[in-house]
Amino acid sequence: MNGHFFILSAPSGAGKTTVCEALLKELPDLRRAVTSTTRPARPGEVNGVDYFFLSREEFQEKLKVGRFLEHAVIYDNYYGSGRDYIEEELDAGRDVILVVDVQGAQSIQETGVRAIYIFLLPPSLDVLKARLVDRKTDSPEVIMKRSAQAREEISRYKSYDYCVINDDLTVAVADIKSIIRAEKCRVDYLSRIVEDIIAPAI
Amino acid sequence: MNGHFFILSAPSGAGKTTVCEALLKELPDLRRAVTSTTRPARPGEVNGVDYFFLSREEFQEKLKVGRFLEHAVIYDNYYGSGRDYIEEELDAGRDVILVVDVQGAQSIQETGVRAIYIFLLPPSLDVLKARLVDRKTDSPEVIMKRSAQAREEISRYKSYDYCVINDDLTVAVADIKSIIRAEKCRVDYLSRIVEDIIAPAI
Repeated sequence: MNGHFFILSAPSGAGKTTVCEALLKELPDLRRAVTSTTRPARPGEVNGVDYFFLSREEFQEKLKVGRFLEHAVIYDNYYGSGRDYIEEELDAGRDVILVVDVQGAQSIQETGVRAIYIFLLPPSLDVLKARLVDRKTDSPEVIMKRSAQAREEISRYKSYDYCVINDDLTVAVADIKSIIRAEKCRVDYLSRIVEDIIAPAI
Repeated sequence: MNGHFFILSAPSGAGKTTVCEALLKELPDLRRAVTSTTRPARPGEVNGVDYFFLSREEFQEKLKVGRFLEHAVIYDNYYGSGRDYIEEELDAGRDVILVVDVQGAQSIQETGVRAIYIFLLPPSLDVLKARLVDRKTDSPEVIMKRSAQAREEISRYKSYDYCVINDDLTVAVADIKSIIRAEKCRVDYLSRIVEDIIAPAI
């Protein structure tokens, strides 16, 4: 049976990367969809693990033939969620999780690809702001902007299947594990197994 | 917020009672919907715990005013899933699970009541037969009949939301726990909380 495709999305600062890392530790069979990028590898980054590092020509060629679910250009570098890796893993029966920003998740939804959409949320916008302050990477103006953007992004939650509130990392990870396990019990997914149970003996 | 209403159904011999008992031990906040009956209490049975013991007149009066989700007459005794207890618990924000046979689950579906339907299945009809033999309560003829009935009942699985295969009790209970937890992360269920997160500060 094919694997399940989970898309984990969140506003900046909600903790999607941390949650996904913790989740992957607990579910060793789950595969993280590896992003492709044209930016150069940083020291220690491994091709196929951290990113697929592509030349600009390779990226544009794949883009032209529709091999990205979504892509974005950030500081003159391309980033994209390639279909190849995801499809191979799903076909091999493995579950795949893609971590992507809200804009990317929306682009993927528009392609009509079959996936289970999980939205990770901060418990409040104040908590989100406090986390962004703690990161010490953004100016107060940028934090105000990100917070306003988060509100706008969260307002699109209805296009997701599940919401997980990231108040406590352990709880959020357990919620997502339950979602993954429950989706494997969905009637549609199990129909072949159930049909086998009731098939007349040969 | 209101609780969730879960309906656990299965063919005879699939283990729904055992699974539900194990589930209730692990989820002390989950309430089992108590069945009403007109049969006399047996020694040790407690009203409101094992059953609600009603007189025939009381039962028929409640039946007449639509206070049962489903009911059946077995050996001249009435059995029914009363709405009152279930609605009170759900209104108080507690999750309720009702264990009911396939016919009962179908009757409830026809009422249009909002519930999450979980179908517990044996791993195979041979395993089901072996379990019925082990019970030592049925004749070979009855076992053949129950097995044929199970096949017919299982063929209606598509009207459920989830299927859980009861091969290993621990696994089946963990599956149902995941379903319960995942349903609490459904976007529809959490909308009030999410709306609070994005509500403008007063």
